[in-house]
Amino acid sequence: MFAEVLTIGDELLTGNTVDSNSSFIGQKLTERGYWVRRKTTVGDDVGEIKTVVREILRRKPAVLIISGGLGPTHDDVTMVAVAKALGRNPILCEKCLEKVKAFYERLYREGYIDDPNLNEGRRKMAYLPEGAEPLENTEGAAPGAYIEHGGVKIFILPGMPREMKAMLENEVLPRLGKRKFIQRKLLAEVTDESKLAPLLIETLEHFNVRIHSSPKGFGNYIGIIIFGESQEEIEGAKGFMESRGVRFEEGW
Amino acid sequence: MFAEVLTIGDELLTGNTVDSNSSFIGQKLTERGYWVRRKTTVGDDVGEIKTVVREILRRKPAVLIISGGLGPTHDDVTMVAVAKALGRNPILCEKCLEKVKAFYERLYREGYIDDPNLNEGRRKMAYLPEGAEPLENTEGAAPGAYIEHGGVKIFILPGMPREMKAMLENEVLPRLGKRKFIQRKLLAEVTDESKLAPLLIETLEHFNVRIHSSPKGFGNYIGIIIFGESQEEIEGAKGFMESRGVRFEEGW
Repeated sequence: MFAEVLTIGDELLTGNTVDSNSSFIGQKLTERGYWVRRKTTVGDDVGEIKTVVREILRRKPAVLIISGGLGPTHDDVTMVAVAKALGRNPILCEKCLEKVKAFYERLYREGYIDDPNLNEGRRKMAYLPEGAEPLENTEGAAPGAYIEHGGVKIFILPGMPREMKAMLENEVLPRLGKRKFIQRKLLAEVTDESKLAPLLIETLEHFNVRIHSSPKGFGNYIGIIIFGESQEEIEGAKGFMESRGVRFEEGW
Repeated sequence: MFAEVLTIGDELLTGNTVDSNSSFIGQKLTERGYWVRRKTTVGDDVGEIKTVVREILRRKPAVLIISGGLGPTHDDVTMVAVAKALGRNPILCEKCLEKVKAFYERLYREGYIDDPNLNEGRRKMAYLPEGAEPLENTEGAAPGAYIEHGGVKIFILPGMPREMKAMLENEVLPRLGKRKFIQRKLLAEVTDESKLAPLLIETLEHFNVRIHSSPKGFGNYIGIIIFGESQEEIEGAKGFMESRGVRFEEGW
C-alpha cells in the first residue's frame, strides 16, 4: 500500500523555502503503514501541476497528498490545476464561502484587516473540484479538499505549514486508519559504516524490518533507524546485531 | 533552459530527514539562470531510481543533479542504479580507488578508524558509470560523477549535505557557467494578500519578472520575492508597485 506526496510552490524549486511539509507528511504516512514511494515538487503552474498529477494517478497510489497554495493570489493555483487534472469543474462550495466570509469578518473585527468584504481573490478559495468534500482549515481561510478518484484517495492541503499540519492531523489522518508502523532510532558504536554493512545485510535477511544507516562523524557513532510493523520484530533485529557485538545507545 | 533535481534516500520519504539538499541545489541553479522545473525524491531502491532517472531524461532537462547515498552500506545504491538507468556498466575508476584508499589510511593514521584496509564496501565507492568523469569529494571518501547522456548534463553527488555542498560549489557550478539570475526579497506593507493580488498581476504584465508572495501573518507584511534577469527589471517592478501605493521594507 503506497502513497505519494506532491508539494507545489515556486519557492520550493528556487530554494527560498525548505520543503519541511513533505517530511511532516511522509512521517505521518509512514507511521500509518503507508510506504511513501515518491515525493514530487513542481511550481505554481497549472500546466505543470496537471501533468504531474496525471502521472501520479497512473502509478495508482492508495493515497496522494498534495500541499500547495490555496490562497487568494495569482500563484495560488493548486485547486484549479488539480480540478483540471481530474477533468472536474471547480464548483462553488456555498458552505465554504460562508466560512471564508466569516474568517475575514473576524479578522476585520479583531483589527487585522481594513476591509471585511469578499473580493475576487477571497471568493476563489471557496471553489473545489466537482464532487470534492471540503476539509476544514482551522488555521486559515482556505478549505482543503478530499476526492476519491480512480481508486486514489486525493487530499489537497494548504502550503502554509501551520495550516497544512492542522488539516493533516484533524481531517486527513482520521480517514487513513490507525497508526501501524513503528521505528526506533539508535546510535551504533561502530567506527565506520563500511564495517557495519555486512551485518546489516544479514539482519535484513533474518527480520522483517527496514534499516537505514547514516554516519554521524567518523570514529563515533553510526545513526541507525529500524522500521518494522511490530515492536518484537524491531527488538529482534536489534538483539541480533547486539549478539554480533554491536553496542547501541538510544536516540539521536 | 530547465533543470531537474533528484534526491535519493529512504530517510527523506519517511520524514526522518528534511530535504535541505534539494533547496540548496535549487538555489544555486536558479542563480545560474536555470529554471528548476521539478524536484523528485525516491528511496534507496535500484528499481525506483532507474525508473525515475529514465522519466527525467525523457523530459530532456539541460541539467539533472542527483544527490544520494554513495557510501559503503547496502542502501548506498545511487551510483549503480544511475548506471543501470543509462545502460552503462559500473567501471572501476583506478584513480578514485587510490583516493578512497588514501582517505581511509588518513583516518586510520589520525586514529578515527581501526582498520585502514579496503573492504568490499569501501571498494564499491570507486565504481562509476562507464564514460563518467569523477568529481572530487573534498569532504568524504566517495567520488561523485559527471556524465553527459542524450544531451543532458548529469551530476551525481553524495547525500551527506557537507559533501554535497562542497562538490556542488567546486565541481558542478564551474561547469554550469556564470551567475545570471537575481532575486530580491522584500516585505510589502499590505494588510492582506488578497488586496495585493490584482496589483501583482498588473506588474507581471509590464515587467519581465516572476513574483512570489507569501503571507507573513495578517495585519503585518506580505513577503515578496521578485526574480529577474537584471537589476533594472527588478527595480522597475518594485517602482511600479510603489507608484501604486505599496510600501516596501528590505529582506526577510
